[in-house]
Order: sequence, then structure tokens, then C-alpha cells
Amino acid sequence: MGARSSSRGVELLCVGTELLLGNILNGNARWIAEQLASLGMPHFRQSVLGDNRERLIAFAREAAERSRVLITTGGLGPTPDDLTAEALAAAFAVPLEERPEVWADIEAKLAARGKVPSPSLRNQALLPKGAALLPNPTGTAPGMIWTPREGFTILTFPGVPSEMRAMWTESAVPWLRAAALTQGVIASRQLHFWGIGESRLAEQVEDLLAGTNPTVAPYSGGGEVMLRLTAQAPSEPEAQRLLDPLEQELRQRSGRLCFGRDGETLASVVLALLQQRGETLAVAESCTGGGLGAALTEVPGASAVLLGGVVAYADAVKQHLLGVPAELLACHGAVSDPVAEAMAEGVRRCTGADWGVAITGIAGPGGGSATKPVGLVHLAVAGPDGCRSGAERFGSSHGRSWVRRLSVGEALNQLRLRLLDAPPG
Amino acid sequence: MGARSSSRGVELLCVGTELLLGNILNGNARWIAEQLASLGMPHFRQSVLGDNRERLIAFAREAAERSRVLITTGGLGPTPDDLTAEALAAAFAVPLEERPEVWADIEAKLAARGKVPSPSLRNQALLPKGAALLPNPTGTAPGMIWTPREGFTILTFPGVPSEMRAMWTESAVPWLRAAALTQGVIASRQLHFWGIGESRLAEQVEDLLAGTNPTVAPYSGGGEVMLRLTAQAPSEPEAQRLLDPLEQELRQRSGRLCFGRDGETLASVVLALLQQRGETLAVAESCTGGGLGAALTEVPGASAVLLGGVVAYADAVKQHLLGVPAELLACHGAVSDPVAEAMAEGVRRCTGADWGVAITGIAGPGGGSATKPVGLVHLAVAGPDGCRSGAERFGSSHGRSWVRRLSVGEALNQLRLRLLDAPPG
Repeated sequence: MGARSSSRGVELLCVGTELLLGNILNGNARWIAEQLASLGMPHFRQSVLGDNRERLIAFAREAAERSRVLITTGGLGPTPDDLTAEALAAAFAVPLEERPEVWADIEAKLAARGKVPSPSLRNQALLPKGAALLPNPTGTAPGMIWTPREGFTILTFPGVPSEMRAMWTESAVPWLRAAALTQGVIASRQLHFWGIGESRLAEQVEDLLAGTNPTVAPYSGGGEVMLRLTAQAPSEPEAQRLLDPLEQELRQRSGRLCFGRDGETLASVVLALLQQRGETLAVAESCTGGGLGAALTEVPGASAVLLGGVVAYADAVKQHLLGVPAELLACHGAVSDPVAEAMAEGVRRCTGADWGVAITGIAGPGGGSATKPVGLVHLAVAGPDGCRSGAERFGSSHGRSWVRRLSVGEALNQLRLRLLDAPPG
Repeated sequence: MGARSSSRGVELLCVGTELLLGNILNGNARWIAEQLASLGMPHFRQSVLGDNRERLIAFAREAAERSRVLITTGGLGPTPDDLTAEALAAAFAVPLEERPEVWADIEAKLAARGKVPSPSLRNQALLPKGAALLPNPTGTAPGMIWTPREGFTILTFPGVPSEMRAMWTESAVPWLRAAALTQGVIASRQLHFWGIGESRLAEQVEDLLAGTNPTVAPYSGGGEVMLRLTAQAPSEPEAQRLLDPLEQELRQRSGRLCFGRDGETLASVVLALLQQRGETLAVAESCTGGGLGAALTEVPGASAVLLGGVVAYADAVKQHLLGVPAELLACHGAVSDPVAEAMAEGVRRCTGADWGVAITGIAGPGGGSATKPVGLVHLAVAGPDGCRSGAERFGSSHGRSWVRRLSVGEALNQLRLRLLDAPPG
């Protein structure tokens, strides 16, 4: 809290009891955050409050002390729990007044659907005195752009995502640009890594983590580690020029651990490598049950490379569809290198694909033993130059979904490394 | 802000610059919000801050003025931008101290995976003096339960969802219950529906939506619609007694549209029905690429029912592995009822399963035509009593993932309805 400082920037408030009850994910916060980042706005805080008049009033006064701009979503509708405009007006002791042009717009929109507005919609025409209208091209609840105190402006939006987004693009962006709240732009890139933990990667690039412009920040999720590179500059090309050498340095230090940038996934990278080579792929899955195929086919255009696969959950399916010999299963067990290799070769053979990838493991929670514990997964990659396999131990502590997700990622990464090693046939 | 009042409750702070940049959705906030609601805790505010030491310090002091409990997620990792413990200690002018038992736990966990901890992990063993450890059973970053001022307690969790959730259940819930922050309990149930939209379901139960205790609230996500039933009472049995007749009434009105409760999924319900009948299942997938198999095998114990399946992405795989006649493909196209039926019968035959389910469609964004647009999906269910098929049109506006997700759900639901109709063989 405290006095106004030069760091006063933009903050976001999402209003809605459904958010506090966990009924919905706060997708509006994420969307606005992305938009602000792309505009180069220093967005430093997000909050969620329920539909509570007193808390909204207290919050608006707090925000006026610390921020240059407050962006709100939600609470603009016609029902008694829609309190945003009223609470904001009360926070700064300004009366509400009805805007005839808003009411006319509501009447016109409903007439177009053959309806008459219910009286409760009249609430939506009430705005604090002095506030400018932020038009809602699709819905009936308008927002406002209001400067209740010098150096503090509030922009309000409805909570309905499609209405909020249309209003953002048409009215808020031009206003934010004109208000010149930012010097220059912020550009950011994400680099994706597989096969290294967050702490070890951070150590390898420790000196770069200390930079202030551009910055590098590590985070992790779903088995992969990411580095976010961010630069601030007067223009987009200048920001990108700050990022280029940094990305190059990070890629050089991490080598093949870095598999992609921004929207790339292990699946999209593997599919692109195979497409460049004009080669095809098939998958054979036991414990992942289709997850590897699903990850690959999530990428648009996967059909140019992926022929298909076999989900060989039961041993009989491993034998009959993939041709895994019964004696291999009897001798080594379904979770073993020989069976993984037979599955990978089998799916390559039965589909005619250039490459076959196989996963067989124990996802848990049941099915583990002393020698083959939950989390043990054998992976094999068969290609024109032969078949290789190996075991991974993902442990049992993170649960079934985690073992399955890591198995899919590890299988894709092993195929990626094989493709980088193997000269196109 | 302002003086401590009787309304002091629980608030939540999620720390992470990736949230402010919009890189990820704040799923932790939603999950914790749901948990707090189910515990009957007055949760009145959520915030997000970046990895910024000064802002974290200022925030912790603010929260101490207005709240009884502050729950934080994120910023507990080993890298220099993980600042939560340090900033909280600084906010209340308490030194950090290394906990040998935490470092021993980190060493033991890494040794089990055959690894040695990197030195930077040592940061994770630093906690404010006087803070109690909140153990992390799965990861290496522990949390804490700390009361830096009388009447104000902080609980910290890592940002990794699986770790945070395990810690919440094992340590935080018992503490929160013991702290007696709530009068009575809030019990809630979720009912899951497939095959009806949110607004239509809400209309069917409109009178019940107006109740105050118990309450009913509709929401939707991932193609399904849910109703949350919530009751507040002095004890858990009394709360459940308020919910029982409400659930009964909702189930009676909605009939087979309601497929399950709480943690049940379409996949778990279908697997349970088949297991009761002693019957087996196999799947044949084109546009979903393994997503149906993955949804089924996400359920622990699926191997008792699911034999496996074929991902028949290319037409040649449909022919060779599933025995779909070439003339059917030539005459009707791969996305058609006859091909869906041949796939379902084919996978039933080649695996020996009692039931076969097939999906073939156009997920987009490419591949659509005037007669077979993006979003058109044909589904077939083959069983002991014959094979039935039909088309669904999911449209193109929600994108590829949406078409695939709805296809999986619709296929599972059609199998569910067939099983409810067909007497066990």
C-alpha cells in the first residue's frame, strides 16, 4: 500500500462469487493478462472478489492508491447481485445517472430479437456521473471508462467472455494506446525443455537469470520445463533483437534438451521432423491406452505422418494384433524391453510405417511388484535403422495420470532424439 | 483494508509471473476455491502477484490486517525467482533458518531416483524461524504453516498442482478443521449430465435454482453440464440429509441425462456397467486418435474390461487391421455410418471383445467439405445384440480439440445408453 509511486501500473479485478466458489476457471484473467502483455503494459496484480458491495467499495479505494488503471470484469448484468457500477460510484461518492442512449440501445437490440426489455435491464443504463460509455457491440451490458481521480482510470467489462473480448478490442485497446501508459512494448518467448529438471536447468543458466532486460524465468508443468524470455523495448523489432541473442545462447547451452519454442509441443516437433523426411509413424501403447496417439493427433495435419496404432492393453491383443510372441510375454513379462521392442516392430510391420514407437508399463495404482514397481515403463523406438529400447522409472508418488503423461512425453522425446541422430533414409 | 473485524476470513494468493503474463490458467485458484467451499470456509478474496519481492512483502502485511488465514501457492521452488518463503519472512522481520529434516528428505527422494540433489535445492530447506513444516509427500519443496502474528496464519503450497493437492488433503485440511474457522459444515455434491445444454437443464429445474439451503447451481465444461448441490448444516449427516431428497428430485426430472455423481466420469460409469456384466470392450478410433482409449484407461482398473483398440487414422489401417472393406471406403467415404459400423465390428472381431465402439470424423481445421463439414463425426456401437451407428455435428467454431473431446464423450454416452437398454447376455 502507501503512497503513489512511479511504479503505478495496471491491475485487474474479476468480480463474481462463482469464481470464489471454484465453479469456473478464471479464463478472463488469463485472456486479459495475455492482451496486456502484448500491449507492453506493466500488469502487476490480479484480484477476485465476490458480489459484495462493501468489499468492492474498499477494493476500489485501495486500487486508486496503488494503480494507474483498474480493469474490472463481471457484475454489470441486470440482476440484484450485479453491483460493480454502483459500488464504484459509491467508492468515490459520485451519483449514478441513467444514460438514455444505453436504454435506447438495449430496446433496439431486444426489438431485433422480437422482444421487449424487462424492467430489470434498466439497471444496466446506470453509470457514474462523468463516466464515458464503453460500448458493448454484442450484449446489452455496456462498460465504462471513468477517471474518478486524477491519475486513476477504471475500465469495466462484463464477465461474458465473448462480450468482454469484443469490447476490449474495439474500445479498450485504442484507449489504452492513446493513454500512452507504456513506454514501448514487451515481447516474450517460451523455450521448452524435456529431460532436465527445473533446478538443474536453472543452474546451467544461472548467470542469465539475473538479467533485467531481457529477463529469463524458469517454470515447469506436465513433465516439461520452460524458460520464459521477456524483453522491453521502444518497438517490437527492438524487443525481438534483445531476445534473439539470448535465445541463441540458451539453445547453445542446453543443446538437444531444448525441443521447441512458444506453441511447439514434443508431438508437433516430432511430426514436423518426420514430415520433412517424408516418413510415417505408428504407435503401440499399453499403459498409456491411446494417450500417445491422442497427443500426436492433437496437432492439426498429423494425418500426413501418423498412420495409426494399436492400443494393446490385454496381452492377447499384443499377441494377435502386434505379433508379440507368447514366449516373450511368458519369459520377460509384458513390461520389459523385449516386449516393448516386439510391440514397436509389430506396429511398424502391421501398418507399414517407417517408424514404430511402443510404450508398456505399470501406471498404477495396482499391478506393481518388488522387481517391477508402479511407475516402471519400458519404451521402444523401431525405425529403418533398427530398434532400441530402455526403461524409465517415474515412481508411484505422483499417481497414475502423471506416469502416463511422462510416458507419452518420454516416448516422443526418444523418437525426436533418434530422428536427430539418424540421417534421412 | 482497515481494522480487524469479525468478518476476517480466508484469502488466497497465487504467486507467479506466468499467471500475470497469461501463460497459464489459474487452475490452482479454482481447485482451492472448491475445497474451501466444501469445508465451509468464508473465502472472500483471491489475488495474483508476480515473482516480485517488494510486492509480496507489502501484500503479506495487507493480508495480515484483513484476514485470519492466508493461503499461498507458488514461489517455493529452488530458483532465484522463487521468493515466497523469503518475502514472507521479511514481511514480518523474522529470519530464515535451514531445516535439516527437509534437506534429508530432499536427499532421500532424489536418491530413490538414483540422483544427487543439485545445490540450489538447498533453498527449499529454508523456512522462517518458528514456522511449522507442511510436508510435501511427492515433491521436494515443502510448505509451511506459520502464525507470524496472533490471529493470522499463513499456509504455503508449491504451484505444481499435484503436489499442492496432495499437501492440501494430507496436512492443510486437518489443520483448517482443527482451527475451527467455520461454524457447521458445507456439504456439496456434483451431478453430471450429458446430452443437454446448460440453459435447457436450468429451465427444467428453475424452481430448484431459487432455493437457499440447499442450493443448486448449474455450470458446464468440456461438453458436459453439471449441477452443484450445496447444503449448510451443523453437522455432516444433517447436511447430507438436506441433499438426499434434492438429488433424488433432480435425478427423477432428468432421467438418463444424469450419468454420474462427484468423481464419476462417463468412462468410469461405462467401465463399471461392463464389469458388472462381466463383458469386455475394444475401441476403434480415427479422428480422436487414441483419445477414447486414453479416457477409458485413465480409470484405474480399466484393464478388467478394456482389451485394447486400434487407432485407424489412415484408410489402409482401417482396411488391414480392422477389415473395413475397400469398397465401403470408396463408396461412402471414411466418415460415414457404414465405415463406422465396419470399424466397430472389426475391432470387436480382431480383439474378441463383447463390445466395440468406433469413431470416425472430421476434427478440422482442414478436411471439411460442403457435404461433410468440419465437426461431422460418425459413431458406432457394436455388441452382442447388433450394431448401431449415427452422425453428430459438433461444428467447427470451437476448434479441433473440442470436436475430439465431444466425440469421445458422445461415444461413451452412446455405449452407456446401449448398456442400460440391453439386458446382460
